[in-house]
Amino acid sequence: MNPQLHFITLATEDLDAVRAFYRDGLGWKPSLDVAGEIIFFQVAPGLTLGFFDADKFGQDLGLSGPVGAVNGITFAHNVGSRDAVEESARKVVAAGGTVLMEPQEGAFGGVYHAYISDPNGVVWEIAYNPGWRIADDGTVVFG
Amino acid sequence: MNPQLHFITLATEDLDAVRAFYRDGLGWKPSLDVAGEIIFFQVAPGLTLGFFDADKFGQDLGLSGPVGAVNGITFAHNVGSRDAVEESARKVVAAGGTVLMEPQEGAFGGVYHAYISDPNGVVWEIAYNPGWRIADDGTVVFG
Repeated sequence: MNPQLHFITLATEDLDAVRAFYRDGLGWKPSLDVAGEIIFFQVAPGLTLGFFDADKFGQDLGLSGPVGAVNGITFAHNVGSRDAVEESARKVVAAGGTVLMEPQEGAFGGVYHAYISDPNGVVWEIAYNPGWRIADDGTVVFG
Repeated sequence: MNPQLHFITLATEDLDAVRAFYRDGLGWKPSLDVAGEIIFFQVAPGLTLGFFDADKFGQDLGLSGPVGAVNGITFAHNVGSRDAVEESARKVVAAGGTVLMEPQEGAFGGVYHAYISDPNGVVWEIAYNPGWRIADDGTVVFG
């Protein structure tokens, strides 16, 4: 199996809050939006992030009820400078995000970052990471 | 904030099991592998999937202890046919995955899929989805 992820799907208790945050607050354009069921956004070439009603998510997995809240995962959005971290963090908060950690130095590698929660408790890290870049062909390069 | 996801980071209790499954079982090449801390794999252009020791994940978020198990998320890997779903599912099981749902018809859209758990309980959907494709420029197209 080649290492290509095509969909990330998160269980959500409140699709309306997801829509208000990502579409109306951050200005993301849904790839598909099925009221009461699921909203998809493209978040990388070939990759879709979906927010799926928690009851229906559970049914799709063959579970007897809804799954609990999303846990144990962070998403990162990298920007080009420390100033851009602060500017982006302000925009995410203005969209309805909750600050978990104000912009500050990270533990290693010269990272400068903030942690902000979406309405589901999904944690976004907004980061400047001088030891990371994306080459022209999409390859991620460390160091 | 443009809708670009750069890192997905999952808390893991057992990095050795992650390495055995993804690197040795599935044959994925780590972008970076720091023993006892984190393993990264590139999973889309510009996108890195990281498995981060659960204690260190908690520390990085400023929590007082490790986070619990990953919950409320699925990853999907799409393939080109029903036969390819069955072949890929066999490979993921051979790598150490646990079948949650054998390959079968999905609820909608002609999807044919299987659900298989990785050693952390992260659920992978292996799917054939005739209503989905990636255009040459990386745009995801539905319908």
